[in-house]
Amino acid sequence: MFFHKKETIVKSVNIDEANPRYAQLLLEQFGGATGELSAALQYWVQSFHVEDAGIKDMLQDIAVEEFSHLEMVGKLIESHTKNVDQTEAFKSTLFAVRGAGPHFLDSQGSAWTATYLNEGGDVVRDLRANIAAEAGARQTYESLIKVAPDQGTKETLVHLLTREISHTKMFMKALDSLGKLTDPFFGNIQPDETVDIYYNLSTNGQDERGPWNSDENFRYIANPVQEKA
Amino acid sequence: MFFHKKETIVKSVNIDEANPRYAQLLLEQFGGATGELSAALQYWVQSFHVEDAGIKDMLQDIAVEEFSHLEMVGKLIESHTKNVDQTEAFKSTLFAVRGAGPHFLDSQGSAWTATYLNEGGDVVRDLRANIAAEAGARQTYESLIKVAPDQGTKETLVHLLTREISHTKMFMKALDSLGKLTDPFFGNIQPDETVDIYYNLSTNGQDERGPWNSDENFRYIANPVQEKA
Amino acid sequence: MFFHKKETIVKSVNIDEANPRYAQLLLEQFGGATGELSAALQYWVQSFHVEDAGIKDMLQDIAVEEFSHLEMVGKLIESHTKNVDQTEAFKSTLFAVRGAGPHFLDSQGSAWTATYLNEGGDVVRDLRANIAAEAGARQTYESLIKVAPDQGTKETLVHLLTREISHTKMFMKALDSLGKLTDPFFGNIQPDETVDIYYNLSTNGQDERGPWNSDENFRYIANPVQEKA
Amino acid sequence: MFFHKKETIVKSVNIDEANPRYAQLLLEQFGGATGELSAALQYWVQSFHVEDAGIKDMLQDIAVEEFSHLEMVGKLIESHTKNVDQTEAFKSTLFAVRGAGPHFLDSQGSAWTATYLNEGGDVVRDLRANIAAEAGARQTYESLIKVAPDQGTKETLVHLLTREISHTKMFMKALDSLGKLTDPFFGNIQPDETVDIYYNLSTNGQDERGPWNSDENFRYIANPVQEKA
Amino acid sequence: MFFHKKETIVKSVNIDEANPRYAQLLLEQFGGATGELSAALQYWVQSFHVEDAGIKDMLQDIAVEEFSHLEMVGKLIESHTKNVDQTEAFKSTLFAVRGAGPHFLDSQGSAWTATYLNEGGDVVRDLRANIAAEAGARQTYESLIKVAPDQGTKETLVHLLTREISHTKMFMKALDSLGKLTDPFFGNIQPDETVDIYYNLSTNGQDERGPWNSDENFRYIANPVQEKA
Amino acid sequence: MFFHKKETIVKSVNIDEANPRYAQLLLEQFGGATGELSAALQYWVQSFHVEDAGIKDMLQDIAVEEFSHLEMVGKLIESHTKNVDQTEAFKSTLFAVRGAGPHFLDSQGSAWTATYLNEGGDVVRDLRANIAAEAGARQTYESLIKVAPDQGTKETLVHLLTREISHTKMFMKALDSLGKLTDPFFGNIQPDETVDIYYNLSTNGQDERGPWNSDENFRYIANPVQEKA
Repeated sequence: MFFHKKETIVKSVNIDEANPRYAQLLLEQFGGATGELSAALQYWVQSFHVEDAGIKDMLQDIAVEEFSHLEMVGKLIESHTKNVDQTEAFKSTLFAVRGAGPHFLDSQGSAWTATYLNEGGDVVRDLRANIAAEAGARQTYESLIKVAPDQGTKETLVHLLTREISHTKMFMKALDSLGKLTDPFFGNIQPDETVDIYYNLSTNGQDERGPWNSDENFRYIANPVQEKA
Repeated sequence: MFFHKKETIVKSVNIDEANPRYAQLLLEQFGGATGELSAALQYWVQSFHVEDAGIKDMLQDIAVEEFSHLEMVGKLIESHTKNVDQTEAFKSTLFAVRGAGPHFLDSQGSAWTATYLNEGGDVVRDLRANIAAEAGARQTYESLIKVAPDQGTKETLVHLLTREISHTKMFMKALDSLGKLTDPFFGNIQPDETVDIYYNLSTNGQDERGPWNSDENFRYIANPVQEKA
Repeated sequence: MFFHKKETIVKSVNIDEANPRYAQLLLEQFGGATGELSAALQYWVQSFHVEDAGIKDMLQDIAVEEFSHLEMVGKLIESHTKNVDQTEAFKSTLFAVRGAGPHFLDSQGSAWTATYLNEGGDVVRDLRANIAAEAGARQTYESLIKVAPDQGTKETLVHLLTREISHTKMFMKALDSLGKLTDPFFGNIQPDETVDIYYNLSTNGQDERGPWNSDENFRYIANPVQEKA
Repeated sequence: MFFHKKETIVKSVNIDEANPRYAQLLLEQFGGATGELSAALQYWVQSFHVEDAGIKDMLQDIAVEEFSHLEMVGKLIESHTKNVDQTEAFKSTLFAVRGAGPHFLDSQGSAWTATYLNEGGDVVRDLRANIAAEAGARQTYESLIKVAPDQGTKETLVHLLTREISHTKMFMKALDSLGKLTDPFFGNIQPDETVDIYYNLSTNGQDERGPWNSDENFRYIANPVQEKA
Repeated sequence: MFFHKKETIVKSVNIDEANPRYAQLLLEQFGGATGELSAALQYWVQSFHVEDAGIKDMLQDIAVEEFSHLEMVGKLIESHTKNVDQTEAFKSTLFAVRGAGPHFLDSQGSAWTATYLNEGGDVVRDLRANIAAEAGARQTYESLIKVAPDQGTKETLVHLLTREISHTKMFMKALDSLGKLTDPFFGNIQPDETVDIYYNLSTNGQDERGPWNSDENFRYIANPVQEKA
Repeated sequence: MFFHKKETIVKSVNIDEANPRYAQLLLEQFGGATGELSAALQYWVQSFHVEDAGIKDMLQDIAVEEFSHLEMVGKLIESHTKNVDQTEAFKSTLFAVRGAGPHFLDSQGSAWTATYLNEGGDVVRDLRANIAAEAGARQTYESLIKVAPDQGTKETLVHLLTREISHTKMFMKALDSLGKLTDPFFGNIQPDETVDIYYNLSTNGQDERGPWNSDENFRYIANPVQEKA
């Protein structure tokens, strides 16, 4: 059961001057792939099938926080689009046609879709998906901060970016508690004997080697074409 | 520049008896969210913007292998749908309307979409996204193996599952080489002072605690409602 | 700011026996066009641009209730899919591939999309959209109730259907308070002189007349083709 | 069976000067959610399952008119994009890549999708959906009129907006003839005893009350959290 | 300007017995990629930018016929789903949830999308796209005819398949009148000197040669890898 | 089995000056409907069900070339977006939010979808679909060449356009080898007696006649309305 208080979760959202073009970029974190809706719904829907009571609870705690962040992003967009109807900047944005305030669209005007979500069947898969989701969200916040038009907007975005790192830490701790933060294997199917092969399938006449193909963990096949010939 | 040899990458794909209903499930790994096309295209498109030559090469090596896996899944689907047109089982599948062989659809008949991909802007984000992609792919292979109709199909799928684990190891090694496998932070923006807060936003009258909210890494706020009141 | 209590909003969700095929139908109200996510997000996103404080609050109250209903539908789906992995019924559903529990998909396996939402620019438009959304949701619940496999499932769905009617009443009262429940006109643009014309464009040699084209409100053009000739 | 005359339904579509940037906004009513294609297809597809002969005929009459309006919007877009290939304004629009003339895209370049439609199962649901569709269409026309570049374009759009109001009146009359314009209830399932409850789930320390939660029609639950505690 | 007569264009649509499972397959030609809506909208939207008056008229004539065919497919689906609510066959189809009659979905329940269309910028491109669209439509009709449950349904589908061939002939004649039915080149950009090269990029140790790579029209590069080495 | 060499297939991709706005247009051929991914995947997926060994091989040869062209377009986009982060031009593109380099999006920011593909069931349908796909690709390249910002970009695009013509020739030769380049009929269902009718359904008081409706191949029905009356 959900409840709502009209105050925002951490601090009030203040901006200098409405900037509807920037508001369109902000949509990326409201209705975009890496946005708060994606995070909230992904973690929350996972909580239905995750068996571990503690991790289930964590997923719900963070999901509810993400809904509250979605609200903060929405309020930022509202501030950057309200009462600016007569400006040229407004006319060149989707808000001129769709109305002021947030919409579940990304910065390019594409509607949010649940195909953005990665979840199902196993808690390890879910937690890895969540670390990736947080990485995407953080990356988009960094992009938005770089072009933020005023200090108030920037501070709100830095806070939201901060919390993505906090959540990443939580997900890493949870994954580590299952022994799966640094262990590639999980699940119930035993891999076959090819598990340590590295195929050098893309070539330029020189070998690029690194920890991901060079140590005792890997059998490096330098020329898979020849092996096939 | 790409090349192709008509043999499959590892072993021939053999099945007992065509099973078009199972073929429809297999579409999940051909044109579905967790399928080989998603993996191939995600890693390959990342290789354009990743600066590190070694990691760029690894992304291309693995992407090319995933294209070869896509081909193996396609051949499995082809085998399970060809020359079976008169069976009832065939008539209840999408192959009766769309034709035999693979299509870029998932097991529910939804077309593949690039919204499945998670990539852009930073190699740490990309690698985390890839570990998550591999986890999803592995999970689906496990589901498919559990209901596989014959030993040949099963062995092919176990091989494909195995390679997802191999790739996970490679991506983990690469992420670890950047120091980011177990460190939640990355990028150029400093988090604010709220980075260690855990909000207990979903409650049932008892506290669920775990490594993700209980140690010295976190400030646990047991009752955020009250703090707001 | 959002909060969550782990109990469901009204009553516990009890079922007789897990029925994964029915669970797939239930997805229609979790991740489908007429489902609870559509309702929750549509009303909530409207609340950002609606100016009237009372209607804004109503939109938020109902949106939060819809999130709680989404949770109830999710729990129904969870109950109908958990611990049933070995049944034939399970194997023929999308849960065999995607995992047990709810997903943001409709009964046909199509991912939820924000293109389902109708909102923006004007509170009258929003409220009319909401009455339509409730009508769609009610209709789907009726369809699901007709084929419900057990009494517990049925009672939960009757409750959810009931609340759609409750919300319809609220939206009608709000629309009526603006004088727009029965007045076709709203907004700032004056219609032109064609506003009372009815074009009889689809014909079968006889005139179908009714209150929607026959009284003093309408100028009926029986043969628009001839007028054009 | 359909027929077509090459003249437009009401008046010729005249513009001052081609304006390809504005043409892109106009796409919203050709291939967008609230556009004429959505209206035409929604009403027409409903006509197949609606039993009442008069309402079925009305749905077809209006659907055919909406196809004729789609044509008028298409001609406006054609006029605003043809023979302007060398301008900078043209180069910054999607017409530079996709070609002059209308396309089934919205103003943001997203392809039209049938997920925009709301229909099925019951005529009351259909008519409520249509009143909502008309409200959305009217709202978008108002937005487009506000930024229209010339008088001819504006007049055409005012006519199209006018007819949305006309159709709203028709749909309201039809709904009223079924007794369902102001009655929230419809269909065959009796609601349960919670039908008159209003949950105050979003709070700010003060009660917002209005006709939608305050009169004898509603039992107002001021503090659902406490009731749960 | 469009008109509609309630009779179907050619013959009445008669069926033996309602078959809702087959009706779901029929959706492929109502709201699917190769269906009548795709054809109608593709040809009609092309008519806005095509300059040649005769070809423009042909596109409109055929588009209007396709709308009339869409109606025939819709009536078939209506007949196969109406008054069958209590059957098990009905319950296993999407009509149980979405209501009887046609919907703009394909046989897998995916919503129609304008991404199916291929049009724009040049009449040669448009006509080639139309020949391809007709080929897809014909192919699907053949699939549906093969599993048609009764003679009446079959005859209607054979008629619709017939007309796809008729349209193909018209489009071929039109393309031929432009000299572009058998000439690969069109448009305003001169190709470079590589136009006659054939790259043998997919190999199995033997050369597959045919008119598409073997005559005087082509320079065959048997081993592009070696040339690159 | 696929392989990759890091050189591009024909010539190096060189540009004068990075132009991120133009790079966004180029996305149309990377992740757009007419782009190289569509071509590569369409031809390759067809090769699974096509029986003729020669045509199967041709489809694979061309598919692999299209993957190599996708790479060239990707490199163009990379060049036009890398190391330009501080420019205003960059900030107004989707690269500011999504990162530099290519993404599987079209020029309007819509994600690539497999609904773009036309394939299945019959080699004649497939080859016709491919000729249409090439026509669309060629048309988009012409549009892009017209607004190309520098000579290097233009030359690369002319090469890619050239190869679309080359492929068209190959597909036409293959279709001709089956006797189906100029014959409208194919497949296993005999058309009915209406195959030579032309319906004049869109009128303007004068008859537009041409080879597509006027010779001995067609029975022209000038007034289908009257015939129905």
